[in-house]
Amino acid sequence: MTDSQNIKKKYLIIHGPNLNLLGTREPEIYGTTSLADINFRLNEFADKNGIELEIIQSNSEGAIIDALHNAMDKVNGIIINPGAYTHYSLAIFDAVVACGLPVVEVHLSNIYSREQFRRHSVIAPACIGQITGLGWYGYILGLEALIRL
Amino acid sequence: MTDSQNIKKKYLIIHGPNLNLLGTREPEIYGTTSLADINFRLNEFADKNGIELEIIQSNSEGAIIDALHNAMDKVNGIIINPGAYTHYSLAIFDAVVACGLPVVEVHLSNIYSREQFRRHSVIAPACIGQITGLGWYGYILGLEALIRL
Amino acid sequence: MTDSQNIKKKYLIIHGPNLNLLGTREPEIYGTTSLADINFRLNEFADKNGIELEIIQSNSEGAIIDALHNAMDKVNGIIINPGAYTHYSLAIFDAVVACGLPVVEVHLSNIYSREQFRRHSVIAPACIGQITGLGWYGYILGLEALIRL
Amino acid sequence: MTDSQNIKKKYLIIHGPNLNLLGTREPEIYGTTSLADINFRLNEFADKNGIELEIIQSNSEGAIIDALHNAMDKVNGIIINPGAYTHYSLAIFDAVVACGLPVVEVHLSNIYSREQFRRHSVIAPACIGQITGLGWYGYILGLEALIRL
Amino acid sequence: MTDSQNIKKKYLIIHGPNLNLLGTREPEIYGTTSLADINFRLNEFADKNGIELEIIQSNSEGAIIDALHNAMDKVNGIIINPGAYTHYSLAIFDAVVACGLPVVEVHLSNIYSREQFRRHSVIAPACIGQITGLGWYGYILGLEALIRL
Amino acid sequence: MTDSQNIKKKYLIIHGPNLNLLGTREPEIYGTTSLADINFRLNEFADKNGIELEIIQSNSEGAIIDALHNAMDKVNGIIINPGAYTHYSLAIFDAVVACGLPVVEVHLSNIYSREQFRRHSVIAPACIGQITGLGWYGYILGLEALIRL
Amino acid sequence: MTDSQNIKKKYLIIHGPNLNLLGTREPEIYGTTSLADINFRLNEFADKNGIELEIIQSNSEGAIIDALHNAMDKVNGIIINPGAYTHYSLAIFDAVVACGLPVVEVHLSNIYSREQFRRHSVIAPACIGQITGLGWYGYILGLEALIRL
Amino acid sequence: MTDSQNIKKKYLIIHGPNLNLLGTREPEIYGTTSLADINFRLNEFADKNGIELEIIQSNSEGAIIDALHNAMDKVNGIIINPGAYTHYSLAIFDAVVACGLPVVEVHLSNIYSREQFRRHSVIAPACIGQITGLGWYGYILGLEALIRL
Amino acid sequence: MTDSQNIKKKYLIIHGPNLNLLGTREPEIYGTTSLADINFRLNEFADKNGIELEIIQSNSEGAIIDALHNAMDKVNGIIINPGAYTHYSLAIFDAVVACGLPVVEVHLSNIYSREQFRRHSVIAPACIGQITGLGWYGYILGLEALIRL
Amino acid sequence: MTDSQNIKKKYLIIHGPNLNLLGTREPEIYGTTSLADINFRLNEFADKNGIELEIIQSNSEGAIIDALHNAMDKVNGIIINPGAYTHYSLAIFDAVVACGLPVVEVHLSNIYSREQFRRHSVIAPACIGQITGLGWYGYILGLEALIRL
Amino acid sequence: MTDSQNIKKKYLIIHGPNLNLLGTREPEIYGTTSLADINFRLNEFADKNGIELEIIQSNSEGAIIDALHNAMDKVNGIIINPGAYTHYSLAIFDAVVACGLPVVEVHLSNIYSREQFRRHSVIAPACIGQITGLGWYGYILGLEALIRL
Amino acid sequence: MTDSQNIKKKYLIIHGPNLNLLGTREPEIYGTTSLADINFRLNEFADKNGIELEIIQSNSEGAIIDALHNAMDKVNGIIINPGAYTHYSLAIFDAVVACGLPVVEVHLSNIYSREQFRRHSVIAPACIGQITGLGWYGYILGLEALIRL
Repeated sequence: MTDSQNIKKKYLIIHGPNLNLLGTREPEIYGTTSLADINFRLNEFADKNGIELEIIQSNSEGAIIDALHNAMDKVNGIIINPGAYTHYSLAIFDAVVACGLPVVEVHLSNIYSREQFRRHSVIAPACIGQITGLGWYGYILGLEALIRL
Repeated sequence: MTDSQNIKKKYLIIHGPNLNLLGTREPEIYGTTSLADINFRLNEFADKNGIELEIIQSNSEGAIIDALHNAMDKVNGIIINPGAYTHYSLAIFDAVVACGLPVVEVHLSNIYSREQFRRHSVIAPACIGQITGLGWYGYILGLEALIRL
Repeated sequence: MTDSQNIKKKYLIIHGPNLNLLGTREPEIYGTTSLADINFRLNEFADKNGIELEIIQSNSEGAIIDALHNAMDKVNGIIINPGAYTHYSLAIFDAVVACGLPVVEVHLSNIYSREQFRRHSVIAPACIGQITGLGWYGYILGLEALIRL
Repeated sequence: MTDSQNIKKKYLIIHGPNLNLLGTREPEIYGTTSLADINFRLNEFADKNGIELEIIQSNSEGAIIDALHNAMDKVNGIIINPGAYTHYSLAIFDAVVACGLPVVEVHLSNIYSREQFRRHSVIAPACIGQITGLGWYGYILGLEALIRL
Repeated sequence: MTDSQNIKKKYLIIHGPNLNLLGTREPEIYGTTSLADINFRLNEFADKNGIELEIIQSNSEGAIIDALHNAMDKVNGIIINPGAYTHYSLAIFDAVVACGLPVVEVHLSNIYSREQFRRHSVIAPACIGQITGLGWYGYILGLEALIRL
Repeated sequence: MTDSQNIKKKYLIIHGPNLNLLGTREPEIYGTTSLADINFRLNEFADKNGIELEIIQSNSEGAIIDALHNAMDKVNGIIINPGAYTHYSLAIFDAVVACGLPVVEVHLSNIYSREQFRRHSVIAPACIGQITGLGWYGYILGLEALIRL
Repeated sequence: MTDSQNIKKKYLIIHGPNLNLLGTREPEIYGTTSLADINFRLNEFADKNGIELEIIQSNSEGAIIDALHNAMDKVNGIIINPGAYTHYSLAIFDAVVACGLPVVEVHLSNIYSREQFRRHSVIAPACIGQITGLGWYGYILGLEALIRL
Repeated sequence: MTDSQNIKKKYLIIHGPNLNLLGTREPEIYGTTSLADINFRLNEFADKNGIELEIIQSNSEGAIIDALHNAMDKVNGIIINPGAYTHYSLAIFDAVVACGLPVVEVHLSNIYSREQFRRHSVIAPACIGQITGLGWYGYILGLEALIRL
Repeated sequence: MTDSQNIKKKYLIIHGPNLNLLGTREPEIYGTTSLADINFRLNEFADKNGIELEIIQSNSEGAIIDALHNAMDKVNGIIINPGAYTHYSLAIFDAVVACGLPVVEVHLSNIYSREQFRRHSVIAPACIGQITGLGWYGYILGLEALIRL
Repeated sequence: MTDSQNIKKKYLIIHGPNLNLLGTREPEIYGTTSLADINFRLNEFADKNGIELEIIQSNSEGAIIDALHNAMDKVNGIIINPGAYTHYSLAIFDAVVACGLPVVEVHLSNIYSREQFRRHSVIAPACIGQITGLGWYGYILGLEALIRL
Repeated sequence: MTDSQNIKKKYLIIHGPNLNLLGTREPEIYGTTSLADINFRLNEFADKNGIELEIIQSNSEGAIIDALHNAMDKVNGIIINPGAYTHYSLAIFDAVVACGLPVVEVHLSNIYSREQFRRHSVIAPACIGQITGLGWYGYILGLEALIRL
Repeated sequence: MTDSQNIKKKYLIIHGPNLNLLGTREPEIYGTTSLADINFRLNEFADKNGIELEIIQSNSEGAIIDALHNAMDKVNGIIINPGAYTHYSLAIFDAVVACGLPVVEVHLSNIYSREQFRRHSVIAPACIGQITGLGWYGYILGLEALIRL
């Protein structure tokens, strides 16, 4: 997008599969904050920082790919928490590369201290960076990083 | 769901990808019984045993995850035949864990005597048990096990 | 065996190594039901269903192979819980194939959610099916499946 | 389908995930030809050769499986470029087997000279053949092969 | 070679080890067409398309390397069916790279649905593309692709 | 044993697990010759060649180890067909090494053209040689080799 | 440390091996900012946020372990960029666990898009989180996360 | 067992397969001390330390499992040298866990400097500790450790 | 070949790479018998048994493949010692399959007790059997087996 | 060193990385005994047994290697607990071999029942033996073994 | 050869597959020096150092083995650049061992910084040493080393 | 460094861990030449060739990295024998890359014919070349190569 000075920077937040259940399930891993709570705080942060957010959640790999495509020419960067797709969705990897935007991968929990299969992200090589284990605050940090670019 | 005594126990049956073609294709592996036939027998069993069934089939990973989420607080247990998603859908694994319900994984054929890739289920660790190789009757056995819990 | 109508169908139940300790050890995994209790319930089921059972337990791989051989021409099917032999006894695999009878593999616990080494059965490819994680009731379900064949 | 002489042979072309972005992204790998251009040339070829084409593109694994199912009894063969699903979608593999039609797998780039993960197709064993690295012309060659069968 | 307009384009066809036995052995895999038949059809195609072919067959890895070297500055492209050398001849891989010509790898059968060892080509990364599973017609398709370059 | 000239050379033949079922089961792999038939022919060969044989069959790993120990100082060499123990019984490997006698490993079928797990013998490194795929005649060849030592 | 209200929170920053060369070497990967520049900005950030920093750099695994030990009871949290020790120093992993402090692992470059060996951190499972690919700003984000705890 | 002060503590020593041949075979690895010699010294040690020993040797996996079961409620601890079963007997592993007694694994030779297959014990995780490479004296050290518990 | 009764049976012996140096090099592994000695004894055996032998030695993979092709319709069976080609020559594997003759693989030394790379034969699955470790006498045993077929 | 009778035998104890924190950190794994406590008991044992001890602790791989070198010609044996260096320090392995002294490897916890990475010692093959899982008493047992040599 | 003082020492240089194309192809990896240039410089060096050289190049594995055999008793040492055969020709490995001469393996480029498959030499264990990455000068260094022996 | 003509070229020699013990330990592998002897000969060579040497030995990984850093802008090239760090010190790899100087890796013994773990150098990809197996003379050859650059 043309980055003129009167236009607010806009960012897309993609919450992947099962994140809609946040707060009610497995709080010992994911905390008690619901997805609505997180989104509220993200929007609060956006307001304070003069940026605009688009937030989606989907359990569907295809829908996440579509969202990445649709973001082209519309946003300045993307935060993605690909949920379990992190570990095998090469199609999302391709979509991140193809969209040509700076993408930061965020995970609520420290995926490197959990089951073996969670310790490898096939999507990370397509992103500019990754933030893990810092809870919902990781999204805020990811946005800060995107704003600074 | 509140498990009051006047309310019939309800179970969800999830048939995964390609199971809609049962009976017409590869009968040497999957038999000649169609999915409609299986569902007829499952409903017959449900009637005899005073339980209620909800049965869905989908080729979409996201739709199966949605179904698992929707079942929360609505059913007493789930039978899932994840088809080929058995072998890589960590997102369905997460959904089975997240839904918090007793889930039994069922496979019509003996997946342990077929191609190498079929011999590993990424979903099984999230289920309470697995029944394989006993044809459509495996669904019945799975329901019996859920009812007994 | 000649399957004449006046003769009760007969099934062999093989309990593998360490199952003699059931109920007294590691109840958090295997429950508090003893092997005698399980066998009592299996015989109860047999009586109700007009079938005959032969039940053995052995810690010896060779004795289990002998039992499979001896069952030829004497029983209509076999339920086997091979205990830890599940994971390496290719000799039992060969015996299951060689005996030519329908064999169902049963495990009390969900072997797919335990240590890595328990997640692979070298015997399963020789069986008609496998039932795991459903406790002693898995034996009952296995018998139901064998009776229906 | 009954292959009577008055009826044009019909083929389905399936373009998998991210192929909708062809021509605008990563031209150094995929060239500058857009998907619309390719489809135009495929239809041109179809007209010249008296065959009929149905062309779809989808980023959704489930939708691709549905398309393979729907093609049964309607087309004489299928060209599929499964995009990144090539490397892990066992559900598409099953659908290719189940549909019972001759399927040719096509890749624009030479997947064997790219990242390690792109060098293995889980779908290829279900197809009659594979054409890689020959650009959009690979689709034409695939159609020629299907017509000759 | 200087690609002047009066000079016919020339292509080299290399048939690798054991292909001399085509048609008489393992027809269930390789068909009943002999190598002479294939060469006849290739020459027929060449005549129709105004190109010249040089065709060799050898069971010797060294001779195949020599043929690739000799083709430099003499032909416009190469079709190679490396037979079993496909799976381990890094020396042929090097020769394909070194000759600097466009090379298309062709296999009669679908090597991806056969023994495990046949599913990996060490030569493919050096080629511009690969055509598998389409029988002798794959050579024709490969020539079409080379002519179009 | 003291190898005086008046004493017949003596050899031990060990048939491992499941070989007692030879001839009646899986004849497509193991042929229709029973173990009794084989032993008859081995004794016939022994008579003709002025040697003495001791022949045992056991399904028990421990019993096979005992037999190897007992043979020390009593026989001039051993033929062993370890059946499925071939593939994992390191205890038999140790016993073969420990007994200090020349041992030839024999397999009726060609273990290298069967299931993957049959293609590796953990016992072979302890033997002087191995004969596979030549049916019961492999035992005769093994005895010839031992006699010649 | 006793966390009284008059005492500034204090954090330790550990720069691992080769980071002393930042800015002068391989700027295409690590940028042109020197370690002194980074430390200047970190101190600037600390001043603004009312925290205290201790910053060390060492090429010695033992010295880094010593630093982690010494930090116990002295700081409120640690940022560590273990450089290449990330990939094999289990002794640093143990030290991170043993020190009992919240530790955030930071990498300047996206280690998941570089050489294979850089894609695995043996230290990450001991940390509360990891930030990669966001340049020196990753240290700032890590400090923000620690302050918020 | 009730650990009253008048009753001598009792320990079980289990010598696994092939250890009956100690002293006569492969003395370069196992030394020239026979099993009888070792047992004599162990009993000597027991007398001096006021403990009672039960010592068994068996080449049979099943018999070793039986011995572990029988020891329950009868002994205060167990020394086991599982011989080659060390490397694959998951059934012995299960028996060690199930018996609920402190078990020390002992090996005469340093299994970590011999063949690759000897470098991994599947039984060790079930034991409280392991002593290797210190010859028959390792049994004494193991007893000392058990007595101190 | 037509197997009429007046015609001597004929067999081909193929000695692979480096076997021409037998007897002069590495006698501790291969013995002191030269290849000429072995061939002399093989011919002696042939004379005694009324069969005809053709014996070749080659260091060239291509020449060995040619020899296998040339033997078709000329001999009744083949003994092959593929030397180091045993471990990687899939082209020789293909030639053994393609020639359609019974082939016995022979190795002088016990390849299963030597370097790791020698313990796997890619050619064995194409042969009817394999004889290893019995020195030059293995060729005689292989011929005996072929004659008996 | 010259082992004259008037000179006390002397042994070196090397405590590797992070062991200085013993007793205060992770007592559920390593117990509550501090390193000072252990050293006190070791010296007590030394006094009772008329031997001399030198005890060092270091977090530095290089310093541990130096200590091993310096011990040459000065001590009669070494006890080493290499901490996490156990799992990757091939340089310490080399130093143990090079120092030419009997070295016993000791671990406080049972490394074979902890994380996967702790289950392999690269140093063990260079030692005469290993004692694991028996707490600080393992050092005493190691000294006993060294004294007996 | 008898190493009398009047006879010049003689060395064989073997250039393996594709090295005949040096200088004209892939100069970014192999430089612009042709094989003739290298040989000229090697002969120049030989003259200066009073040694004799025999230089061959072959693309054939068999011919390289023959050359190694022929060198026996004729030369004092060998320099071999096995090209891509480096990575799989166990037959050349065997020939290097069998020829009994000191052989130095030379590679023009640093094979350890190129494709994964080039980083492993199956021939190196049979050589006295290896020189890589130092261009044609590596041959000179190899000769110096051989002369000094 | 400015490479003016009056200034002697200077090279750094780094001897890694355990090399200080050369000559006194494991002479069957490393020879009887001490490190002092080697350094003497290197200095002799330096004098003869008009170059200057700086020679260090260290057992510490960190010290070796420091040495590589310190050499920047001071020497024209480096010879490094990283000892056992060769096989895992990615931090030294990084330092070699970062120092920007031509580095030649030298090993006294042929690391490719020793233990498996010695056959892989993680440092080699950062060097310009590697010389192995040629004893201390390999250092001389490495210097010759550096001088010629």
